[in-house]
Amino acid sequence: MRNVQPCLNSLVANILPYHTDDVPLARELLHKAVSGLPNFFKEKVPTNILPYKTENEAQTREFLNKVIEVLLDFVKASNDRNEKILDFHHPEEMLKLLDLRVPDHGVTLQQLVNDCATTMKYQVKTGHPRFFNQLSSGLDLISMAGEWLTATANTNMFTYEIAPVFILMENVVMTHMRELIGSDWRDGDSILAPGGSISNLYAFLAARHKMFPNYKEKGIATIQGQLVMFTSDQSHYSVKSCASVCGLGTDNCVMVPSDENGRMITRELEKLVIDRKSRGHIPFFVCVTSGTTVLGAFDPINEVADICDKYGMWLHVDAAWGGGLLLSKKYRHPRLSGVER
Amino acid sequence: MRNVQPCLNSLVANILPYHTDDVPLARELLHKAVSGLPNFFKEKVPTNILPYKTENEAQTREFLNKVIEVLLDFVKASNDRNEKILDFHHPEEMLKLLDLRVPDHGVTLQQLVNDCATTMKYQVKTGHPRFFNQLSSGLDLISMAGEWLTATANTNMFTYEIAPVFILMENVVMTHMRELIGSDWRDGDSILAPGGSISNLYAFLAARHKMFPNYKEKGIATIQGQLVMFTSDQSHYSVKSCASVCGLGTDNCVMVPSDENGRMITRELEKLVIDRKSRGHIPFFVCVTSGTTVLGAFDPINEVADICDKYGMWLHVDAAWGGGLLLSKKYRHPRLSGVER
Repeated sequence: MRNVQPCLNSLVANILPYHTDDVPLARELLHKAVSGLPNFFKEKVPTNILPYKTENEAQTREFLNKVIEVLLDFVKASNDRNEKILDFHHPEEMLKLLDLRVPDHGVTLQQLVNDCATTMKYQVKTGHPRFFNQLSSGLDLISMAGEWLTATANTNMFTYEIAPVFILMENVVMTHMRELIGSDWRDGDSILAPGGSISNLYAFLAARHKMFPNYKEKGIATIQGQLVMFTSDQSHYSVKSCASVCGLGTDNCVMVPSDENGRMITRELEKLVIDRKSRGHIPFFVCVTSGTTVLGAFDPINEVADICDKYGMWLHVDAAWGGGLLLSKKYRHPRLSGVER
Repeated sequence: MRNVQPCLNSLVANILPYHTDDVPLARELLHKAVSGLPNFFKEKVPTNILPYKTENEAQTREFLNKVIEVLLDFVKASNDRNEKILDFHHPEEMLKLLDLRVPDHGVTLQQLVNDCATTMKYQVKTGHPRFFNQLSSGLDLISMAGEWLTATANTNMFTYEIAPVFILMENVVMTHMRELIGSDWRDGDSILAPGGSISNLYAFLAARHKMFPNYKEKGIATIQGQLVMFTSDQSHYSVKSCASVCGLGTDNCVMVPSDENGRMITRELEKLVIDRKSRGHIPFFVCVTSGTTVLGAFDPINEVADICDKYGMWLHVDAAWGGGLLLSKKYRHPRLSGVER
């Protein structure tokens, strides 16, 4: 397979943004620059589809339609319970079934289609009815179509000018999701984050900036005393990594014991806060987990919030896993009670 | 438009991973859970395609093919220089052209297709021959097809077991890209990062851990003296944000003046290093930029590397923009000379 080509092609796009004010000149620049590239690279750019040949719309469409047929066959197989979830081979064996060498010459479009089919043949069918994972399963076809669309739009979300509909859409979705938490959250603020780990880092930085506004310019040296944060021993490891990244050190991310169901024991939290204060430290941040990774436990938000109020600490709710229950009349309470505080 | 649905549908997938060992039971669980959801939500799940109706493969395929036609029309228009790059409307006006309300009831599949078409109609054609941006332009169709494929595979890159072909492919691509830098880099290490800003943070953390291994557990308090980093005044703002995030403070990210072409002036760097050392600080990290955001300037890597050697500092090359020139025999030197050190 030669699927490294997408990657290399992206690099071409990076080298050659069209800096000129017309297409012929841009093309001339392109050809000049390509002549400076190693031969193996020049020969790898497939030039028989758009945008290299503007008259080749039909061929482009045919190629993409073939790719889509491969993808739709995968979707079909994923929903067929008689299909294997995975045609498993050990890595050494798998390497014999594939041809992953980076080729010296360009390959045909049909070869690319074949490579896509081979890739999907040996991929795990994560949407298969018999695929079970505690954190993910299922392939939602509407969402998948949405992802195809954003890949094709190939834009970013910097400003309204570069993504007008998406920016408006983001506002509507974020407002609606805040309203699901509580009607008085309408005028709040929210962001879409690329994942749970970085969301915890965002939260930590927001708390730090709110409580120690000099930290940003002057650094941790401005704070007289060791900052300390708290999280349950069942929380996601990314919480602890905040303490490492931001300069507290993982020793100052205190793991609070949890009960037999995996929920943070709040009286243990308070004891640990008092202990650290007695050593001259500054407890300032507590993370509760709403849906722990292994047991799916929900920490008692209201009880922890009371302790945070008492000792002047920031409360962060990591609801990367269980946040969806905000949509459920039946299951939201008591699991997420207090999230609105 | 009702394009918030993909988002809400994803939430359903989060609430209802199939925890059971067979499909009928999973479906029963699904129905029970949905009955606990607010009505407006239940009615929004489109159930006339896979996986909700396993016999509806043809309808699913028809729906996705219609979406693809919309996307291919966008690709065609993007390559037509007689097309507008953007059908611009101010936000207030745009809101009148769209219907972004979250609906009370589910919508038809045809409505979703129409919504996709409306979205693309008002989207910037970033692949248009007349779209010029200093950092991005062009739509590479092979890469786009690759992104459709990964969206459909809907997996992550945790382990070989969950993404066998992708993991092997990643190894081949990363090895090949290291070989492009230098044949002796074959046995090195590399990662694919989601963007330039976080890459700078990764580099900063790697340097910090290499030079101060206690920092991770004990925090910045373990270091006797103020850490200082250096970057040119033309570098990307994410370099400075490392100093904020990691506890140095932005005041300890020293901006080195650049010459009239935007390149870091190395004698100014050395002066600033000496100045900070005389104040008892610990200079430990220098970022050179290989392709600055505004001017596309390349800092002199070899000269800066000599200073780093002299004062025992870590050298990081931010080549998010200009790294592609590693592929060019003609343009690699002298711009990226020294990157292999």
